[in-house]
Amino acid sequence: MASKIKKIGVFTSGGDSPGMNAAIRSVVRTCAYLKVDCVGIFRGYQGMIEGDFKPMDARSVNNIINKGGTILKSARCDDFRTPEGRKIAYEQLKAEGIDAFVVIGGDGSFTGAMIFNKEYDFPVIGIPGTIDNDIFGTSFTLGFDTALNTVVDCIDKIRDTASSHNRLFFVEVMGRDVGHIALNAGVGAGAEEILIPEENRGLDRLLESLKRSKQSGKSSSIVIVAEGDKTGKNVFELKEYVEEHLPIYDVRVSVLGHMQRGGAPSCYDRVLASRMGVKAVEALLEGRTNLMVGVRDNKLILTPIEKAIKGTSKLDKELIRVSEIMTT
Amino acid sequence: MASKIKKIGVFTSGGDSPGMNAAIRSVVRTCAYLKVDCVGIFRGYQGMIEGDFKPMDARSVNNIINKGGTILKSARCDDFRTPEGRKIAYEQLKAEGIDAFVVIGGDGSFTGAMIFNKEYDFPVIGIPGTIDNDIFGTSFTLGFDTALNTVVDCIDKIRDTASSHNRLFFVEVMGRDVGHIALNAGVGAGAEEILIPEENRGLDRLLESLKRSKQSGKSSSIVIVAEGDKTGKNVFELKEYVEEHLPIYDVRVSVLGHMQRGGAPSCYDRVLASRMGVKAVEALLEGRTNLMVGVRDNKLILTPIEKAIKGTSKLDKELIRVSEIMTT
Amino acid sequence: MASKIKKIGVFTSGGDSPGMNAAIRSVVRTCAYLKVDCVGIFRGYQGMIEGDFKPMDARSVNNIINKGGTILKSARCDDFRTPEGRKIAYEQLKAEGIDAFVVIGGDGSFTGAMIFNKEYDFPVIGIPGTIDNDIFGTSFTLGFDTALNTVVDCIDKIRDTASSHNRLFFVEVMGRDVGHIALNAGVGAGAEEILIPEENRGLDRLLESLKRSKQSGKSSSIVIVAEGDKTGKNVFELKEYVEEHLPIYDVRVSVLGHMQRGGAPSCYDRVLASRMGVKAVEALLEGRTNLMVGVRDNKLILTPIEKAIKGTSKLDKELIRVSEIMTT
Amino acid sequence: MASKIKKIGVFTSGGDSPGMNAAIRSVVRTCAYLKVDCVGIFRGYQGMIEGDFKPMDARSVNNIINKGGTILKSARCDDFRTPEGRKIAYEQLKAEGIDAFVVIGGDGSFTGAMIFNKEYDFPVIGIPGTIDNDIFGTSFTLGFDTALNTVVDCIDKIRDTASSHNRLFFVEVMGRDVGHIALNAGVGAGAEEILIPEENRGLDRLLESLKRSKQSGKSSSIVIVAEGDKTGKNVFELKEYVEEHLPIYDVRVSVLGHMQRGGAPSCYDRVLASRMGVKAVEALLEGRTNLMVGVRDNKLILTPIEKAIKGTSKLDKELIRVSEIMTT
Repeated sequence: MASKIKKIGVFTSGGDSPGMNAAIRSVVRTCAYLKVDCVGIFRGYQGMIEGDFKPMDARSVNNIINKGGTILKSARCDDFRTPEGRKIAYEQLKAEGIDAFVVIGGDGSFTGAMIFNKEYDFPVIGIPGTIDNDIFGTSFTLGFDTALNTVVDCIDKIRDTASSHNRLFFVEVMGRDVGHIALNAGVGAGAEEILIPEENRGLDRLLESLKRSKQSGKSSSIVIVAEGDKTGKNVFELKEYVEEHLPIYDVRVSVLGHMQRGGAPSCYDRVLASRMGVKAVEALLEGRTNLMVGVRDNKLILTPIEKAIKGTSKLDKELIRVSEIMTT
Repeated sequence: MASKIKKIGVFTSGGDSPGMNAAIRSVVRTCAYLKVDCVGIFRGYQGMIEGDFKPMDARSVNNIINKGGTILKSARCDDFRTPEGRKIAYEQLKAEGIDAFVVIGGDGSFTGAMIFNKEYDFPVIGIPGTIDNDIFGTSFTLGFDTALNTVVDCIDKIRDTASSHNRLFFVEVMGRDVGHIALNAGVGAGAEEILIPEENRGLDRLLESLKRSKQSGKSSSIVIVAEGDKTGKNVFELKEYVEEHLPIYDVRVSVLGHMQRGGAPSCYDRVLASRMGVKAVEALLEGRTNLMVGVRDNKLILTPIEKAIKGTSKLDKELIRVSEIMTT
Repeated sequence: MASKIKKIGVFTSGGDSPGMNAAIRSVVRTCAYLKVDCVGIFRGYQGMIEGDFKPMDARSVNNIINKGGTILKSARCDDFRTPEGRKIAYEQLKAEGIDAFVVIGGDGSFTGAMIFNKEYDFPVIGIPGTIDNDIFGTSFTLGFDTALNTVVDCIDKIRDTASSHNRLFFVEVMGRDVGHIALNAGVGAGAEEILIPEENRGLDRLLESLKRSKQSGKSSSIVIVAEGDKTGKNVFELKEYVEEHLPIYDVRVSVLGHMQRGGAPSCYDRVLASRMGVKAVEALLEGRTNLMVGVRDNKLILTPIEKAIKGTSKLDKELIRVSEIMTT
Repeated sequence: MASKIKKIGVFTSGGDSPGMNAAIRSVVRTCAYLKVDCVGIFRGYQGMIEGDFKPMDARSVNNIINKGGTILKSARCDDFRTPEGRKIAYEQLKAEGIDAFVVIGGDGSFTGAMIFNKEYDFPVIGIPGTIDNDIFGTSFTLGFDTALNTVVDCIDKIRDTASSHNRLFFVEVMGRDVGHIALNAGVGAGAEEILIPEENRGLDRLLESLKRSKQSGKSSSIVIVAEGDKTGKNVFELKEYVEEHLPIYDVRVSVLGHMQRGGAPSCYDRVLASRMGVKAVEALLEGRTNLMVGVRDNKLILTPIEKAIKGTSKLDKELIRVSEIMTT
C-alpha cells in the first residue's frame, strides 16, 4: 500500500490529561515504524497558526510514556475559530509539508478539526484525551482511568481523617457536564452519596441519606459532588445547608481541583494511548479521515468525528444502582 | 420475587488479589440491601469444611474497599477435592443454614464449586478474582488492573536506575500460563522486549532486538519476562546468555514477586468488584446457579462455570503488534 | 526496677496525623513487653470523661502501623477545660485503675495534660502528633514528614498540568501559625515563591518575582501559600490580584485541604512513632512525668511539657535562603 | 568575596540514588545565583576522562527535582584509579576551564576525589548520594529516606498477601555492609525479625522468634534480610532452612532488588539535596576543599573526605532495641 501521506503532524489541544504523552509517543513511533515523517506541533491550534513545529523521530519520545501533562503543550485558541486563522494554519502546514494530522483532545478540539477537514479536505484523525470521559464513541477516554485513581487515593486519605473525627466531607471532583468521575470514584471510594449533573434528586433526599448513614453506625461520611451538580448549591453552600438542617454532623469541604489532571498515567491509560496512536496513524495511511479512534469491548473502533461530537456519553444506570446498594 | 434463598455464604479461595475485599463488601451489602442473611466463610473451602463461619452485616465490611488481600483469608484445600471432604462441607453449610454461596477466586476454586454444585444441587456463583486475567468469560478479572499498575510503577523505578547506568534489565512478572500481565505491563512500561508463555520467538530474535535497541541510541533496556515464558531459560539464565552473546550490555535481573498480589486496589478494580458482587447475589436470588460473573463491553454477563474453566483467555494479537511497533 | 505504675492509658487528641496509629501500637506493645497493662481511651479527653476505655494487648494493634488516622479516634473536648470535667476524668481513670497516660497530640492536648498533672499529680507523658511541626522541643512531629510527601506529590501532579498550559498556580497548604509545611514542601516541589505566616515580604515582591520567573523562560509557576500567610489576601484574592496586576499569567488556585492529614505514614514517621512510644512508656515507668518526647539530632529527648507549649518552633533561616536560591 | 573559582563541574558517580537530580539542580542554580559558570560532567569519572561536558544554566535543570536517577548518568570507572587516567581527567578539566568540582556519590567516588585533590591540588567537595546511608559524617545520605519509603510500600503490599494466606516471607533488601535500610524499613514495616550485617544472632534465635510469633496469634510474618546478612544463608537458603526446621509455616521469598534505587525522591531527600547543593558550591567559593557536606541535628556540616571514608556509620542501638520490643 503506497499512501499519499508522507508527513503527519501530531498535537494536543484543550485541557491536558494523563496519557497524552503516551499517545504522542505512539503516533511518533508508529510513523517511524511505517517510514512516514512525523512533526510535533506545539500548543495545539495556536502553534499550528504560528508554525511552531518540530520534527520528531523515535528517540525524541524516549521516557515520556510515564509522564503526566503533554510535552507538546496545550492551549485554547480563539484564532482557529475564524476562517482567517484556519487559512494561516493551513498555509503553515503546507509550508512544512504536513499532509495530515492527529489531534489528541476533547470535543472542542475535534470540532476545530472537523471544520478544518471540511474546508481544506485535510486528513484528520482524533484521539480522545480528557479525564472527563465525556465523549461519545469510546468507552474510555485517555486520562479517565488515571484521574479515577487519583481521586480515590485522595478520598482514601480524607477518609482517614474523617473517620478519626466522625466527620462528614463534601468532596468536589471534576465533571461540569457529566458525572463519570463522580460516579465511578464515588463507588470506588465508598462514598455515602454522589451528586452528579445528570440528575438532581434533591436536598431532602441528601439529608435523609445522611441521617440514615449516621444512624446505621458509620463513623464518617463522604459525599462526592461533581462540579456540574444540579442541586443549585456548590460544596460550600452544601456544607452550610447540612450544618443548618442536620447539626449532628461536623462538616468539612475539600475541592480536589487540578491535581486530578496530572500524575503518571495508569497502565491502562498508557496501553490505551499506545493502541490508539497506532490506530490513528494507520487510519490516515489507509486514506481514512474525519474519524475518532475509540475503544469498545476492548477493541479499537473508528467513529465519525461529527457523531462523536454530537453524541453524549451516558452514565451507566446499573452503576448508579450499584452506588445506592453499596451505601446500605 | 420471593426467592427460596435466605442465607448466602461468601468466601475467597486460591491466590488472593486486590479487589477481593471490595467484592466481599459488595456481596455482604447487597445481601443486607435485599434482606438476605450473609455469612462469611474463612479460608475458602478449608474453612467451609471446618465450619469457620461468621455472620456479616453491612457494618462488618466498613473500610475494607481500599484494602488489599482478603479479610476472609484464603487457602488451598486438598480435602475439598475428595467426596468425603465435600460431604462434610455440605453438612457444615446446612447446619449453618447457608442456602447458596458466592466464591471469589480462580479456575481451581471454580472447579470445586462446579463439582459441589453437581453433587449437591447447591446454588453457586463465581466471581473471578486473580491478578492473572486468565479466565475465559470476562475481559477483566479482579486484581488484574491493580497488578498492572503495581508492575509499571516498579518498572518506572527500575528504569530510573537502568537509564542512569545504561543497563539492561530482565524483569520477571507473574503469569505461569498466560502473558496478560507481561504484555500489558510491558507496553505500559515501554519495555524493549516481552517474553510470554504464548509464543517462543527464540533467543536469536531477542539478541537481534537488543542489538538494534542499543544501536538506535536507547540509554537503557527493559525486557519483561513472564514466569511461564517458553524460551527454556529463567531470568537469571537469560542474563547469563545475553552477557555471553552480547557483551555490550551490563545486565541485571529483578523478580517482582508477590508484591504484585497486594496493595490498595485501583478504582477500576473497586468498581468492578462492587458491580460483580451485586450481580452475583441477584443471580442467586433469581434462582440461577453454576455461573460466573464477568464483564464484557463494560456490561456484566454470566457464563457457565464449566465454560469459564474450559475456555482460555487469549492474548490480544493487536496488542502484540502494538508492542512491537512501540519498540521502534 | 519496680515501678508503681501498673496500668497506662493511651489516647490521641486534637487534629489527627499520620503516625498516630504507629505510636499507639508502640505504646501498647511496649507495655506488653514490660508487663504493664495498657488501656486505650477513645476520642481523647472526651472519651476519658465518658469512660470510653478498652484494654489493649499486643495483638489488638496488629496491622495498624501503616494506617493513617487513629484507631482510638480523636475529638476536641470543651468539658476537659473545666475543673468539673477534669474531676470526672480523674474519677474515670481511677475507676479503671489507670495510673498514668500517654497523650498523642499537639499544643492544646498537652496543655490539658499539664493542668491535669498539676491538679491530680497524675503522671503524663506527651508524644507530639501533628502535621504542622509547630512544637518546641522536637525537630520533627509525627505526621510532618508524611504530610510533606503528600503535598509534593500533589504539586508534582499540578505541575504536570501547569506546565502543559504555561499556567501559574497558587496552592494553599496547611499551616495557620507556622510555615514549616509551606517552606519544606515549597523547596521540595520547586515552587517559585513561598508565602509563610512568619514573614510578609509584600505583594510587590511577589509580582517582581513572578515577572522575573516568566522572563527567565519558565513554563509554569507554582506559588505555595500557607493558610496563615500574612499578605492579607487568601489564595483566591491573590489570584485576582495577580491577574489584575500581571496579566501575562493564566492563574489557577488549588487548596489541598484535609487530604494532607491522611494517608499511610512514611517510613520515617512510622519509625519515629515506634521510638517515641517506647520512650514514653519507659519514662513513665521510671517515675518521670509532665514531659514530652522529642527527637533532636536523631536522638530521643524529653522536654518539660510547659516548655514545649511556651516555646516556638522556628523556621530554619538557612532553608529560607535555599528556597530563594533555588528559584533562580 | 572574590573567589578564584570561576567554573564548577558537577557529576554523579557510583550507584545512583533518588535525590541526585535535586542535588545537581541545586549545584547548577546556586552557581547561577552566585554568577559562577557550571558544567555538567556525564557518566562520572569516565566522562571526565573523555571530556563529556555540557555547560548548564538555571533552565537546564527545570523539572528534574522530582525525577529519580541522574540526568548526568553514572558509571564506574577503572581508568580513574590509575595515575594516567587521572592525568587525562585533569587535562580535560583544565581544557574546559573547570576550576573545581562537586562529586555526588558514595565512598568509592569520594576516594577518587580525595586522591585527585591531593595529586592536583584541585578543589573538590562531596555530596553523599547513596541509598545505603553508609557514610560517616552525615545522619542521612541522599536517597536513603526515599528507599525506605519504597521498601515499606513494597512490604505493605507483601503483607496483604502474606496475611491472607498466613504465610511467612523472607524479604531481601539492599545493604551489603550496613543494615540501615533493613533496620529502619523493618521497624517501619512491622517486621517480625530483621537480619543485618552488623550482628549474627544465629539461626536458633530466628526459629525461636518465629515459633513465638506463630504462637502469639499473628496471621503472617515478615523477616527482613539485608543483602550482607551474616547468617551464612541467603534468603532462599533461609526459606529452606525454616521449612525444614519449622514446618508450621508456608514460606515465600521476595528480593526487592534495584527498584529500591529508583522513584521520585521523597520531600525530605529533595530538601536535603537542595540544601547540600548550596552548601557545596558556597564551600568551594570560600576556598574550602576536600570536604563532604553532611547533615547533623538538621544543620549542614562539613567533614574531611578522608574522615568520611574511614569512619563507619553505625546502627543506632536504641533502634535495634525498639525493633525487638515492637515484635512482642
